[in-house]
Amino acid sequence: MKFNITQPNQALKSQLEHKINHKTKPLGALGMLEAVALQIGLIQQTLTPRLSHANMLVFAGDHGIVEAGVSPYPQAVTAQMVLNFLQGGAAINVFTKQNNMHLSVVDSGVNYEFSHSLDLTHAGLIHAKVAMGTRSFLSEPAMTLAQCEQALARGAGIVDAQVAEGCNVFGFGEMGIGNTSSASCLMSVLCDLPIEQCVGRGTGLDDAGLAHKTNILAQAIAYHHLSSSDAMQVLATFGGFEIAMMVGAMLQAAAKQCTLLIDGFITTAALLVAAKLQPEILHYCVFTHCSDESGHKKMLDYLQVKPLLNIDLRLGEGTGAALAYPLVLASVNFLNEMASFESASVSQKI
Amino acid sequence: MKFNITQPNQALKSQLEHKINHKTKPLGALGMLEAVALQIGLIQQTLTPRLSHANMLVFAGDHGIVEAGVSPYPQAVTAQMVLNFLQGGAAINVFTKQNNMHLSVVDSGVNYEFSHSLDLTHAGLIHAKVAMGTRSFLSEPAMTLAQCEQALARGAGIVDAQVAEGCNVFGFGEMGIGNTSSASCLMSVLCDLPIEQCVGRGTGLDDAGLAHKTNILAQAIAYHHLSSSDAMQVLATFGGFEIAMMVGAMLQAAAKQCTLLIDGFITTAALLVAAKLQPEILHYCVFTHCSDESGHKKMLDYLQVKPLLNIDLRLGEGTGAALAYPLVLASVNFLNEMASFESASVSQKI
Repeated sequence: MKFNITQPNQALKSQLEHKINHKTKPLGALGMLEAVALQIGLIQQTLTPRLSHANMLVFAGDHGIVEAGVSPYPQAVTAQMVLNFLQGGAAINVFTKQNNMHLSVVDSGVNYEFSHSLDLTHAGLIHAKVAMGTRSFLSEPAMTLAQCEQALARGAGIVDAQVAEGCNVFGFGEMGIGNTSSASCLMSVLCDLPIEQCVGRGTGLDDAGLAHKTNILAQAIAYHHLSSSDAMQVLATFGGFEIAMMVGAMLQAAAKQCTLLIDGFITTAALLVAAKLQPEILHYCVFTHCSDESGHKKMLDYLQVKPLLNIDLRLGEGTGAALAYPLVLASVNFLNEMASFESASVSQKI
Repeated sequence: MKFNITQPNQALKSQLEHKINHKTKPLGALGMLEAVALQIGLIQQTLTPRLSHANMLVFAGDHGIVEAGVSPYPQAVTAQMVLNFLQGGAAINVFTKQNNMHLSVVDSGVNYEFSHSLDLTHAGLIHAKVAMGTRSFLSEPAMTLAQCEQALARGAGIVDAQVAEGCNVFGFGEMGIGNTSSASCLMSVLCDLPIEQCVGRGTGLDDAGLAHKTNILAQAIAYHHLSSSDAMQVLATFGGFEIAMMVGAMLQAAAKQCTLLIDGFITTAALLVAAKLQPEILHYCVFTHCSDESGHKKMLDYLQVKPLLNIDLRLGEGTGAALAYPLVLASVNFLNEMASFESASVSQKI
């Protein structure tokens, strides 16, 4: 699958900088918001960018690796949390509702058959299941390459449908018991870092649980012995269906010149795969927060990016992206709505 | 003037913690938002707190010390920016509008007569002028003790009027060319820190300007030779009218069990004064951001608090508080709206 992603044309850069610098404020005084305003102006190729139909895509999937005891929660929680999303009771429901984002929940591969007649009062469920969860990557790839490509294509299709409805900004989130294990392996292989630096407590492992998880993942990485240069094979081997589908959605969102709001550890791992496939995708990404999950900060450092929030979140679901969305919106709003020194008749620096 | 501020009763603490810990998320996974939810529950003495009629109070005043060349902007900018607020063109207009906060602009002592017939389309102007700016504190106190007490009382009265209309959460911001000089002196004396650690570039001083400002402020501090224990005298000596009025507003807001959103360097300096007068005020404060203005981080460290945002803002006006407000709202919203493990039938940790 090929995605046509190019770096945004930089011709508008100096005009955008001039506009930002002539707003009624000291030079640079809006800090990181100024960088985001410039970035989104370039993505949209306009001095008056707009964020429209903001959509939070939460991809859910189950993971065969949980049978190896890598999570303190049972696999059933993935489906239970998807039902919680559909009933409006999860953190991501609260935060997307508060911040005026549409929420779409995607069944990418949950080990549960969701009824098509569910009472969908709070969030839409998109049925895109590739299979009833992945296989355990301890001794075989989590999915076939064909399944992986199918997941990417479905993710891209979901984005296409939203873009057709006017969406130009996507949040990305996930739900999947065991998926910090997937993300840790993706990070270890793709960033060429020892697994110990990539593993964290996930939903709340104790010391013994963390040691066990690290040991299991080290075995799996040694067994498959993959090269970081073959990102698709790495994704198929360690990825969950929700991660693979997110990779496809991210790549297509960038190809469609949308702004991508990157959430925490697992979402950033998906982006890592996407960036290995198409490095230009990074121009379209706003990094919304640094998770308290060990490894996320190193992943952000590897990508050489600085996130907006550092408030010790480690929940996933896209919650960091939803919480940071008002800062992204504020970046666009100040660019469009603030007066300039000239228009407000304010004296400049002596 | 006496403000009746007491630490919130802690009896509800364990019930609030139980409610937070049984939401459908791993324990502690909402990080700093959980601490804010607990704090506001205790402030309001309820398991279901509400933030209502959020009000951003922006106090403006002029400073005699600007005649000593401590700012790169002319004094006239204070009044020009107040007019910009009233016309809706400043950053604080954009951010309060976006985040559904009411904006009140207070003339605490601007060196300009604002017409009472101004076309107030965007923000209300509250006429509370103590005088046409302070005197230069280089060789005499910026204001008399009587003026200082008048400023406190007017600040308290403004809060009383808003509380009567249903407001229980206040943002605090300021505008005043020269007021980083005031704030630096307040910090140096009240925290007993050398002035060099308290001075920054303000609206954009170059190296020579910074050295000059530091030298001027060191002279003023040596001349007055005050003790940190007499906070009212320190405030009258170095404070602006906007800072003194903010101190009164903050103290009264805490006395009325409101939540206080503390902005950047100057607002935190006002809080420092308030906390010297009534240390219990700190229980009512949410620290919204760490400014890029040198000294603010040290002031936050002195108060032993951790702010929500670190995005290199250094604009003042209350912009950090307005930008962080959605995070504060999200803290209250998750507490009220998220399902519990029981209510959503989600399995807990094995």
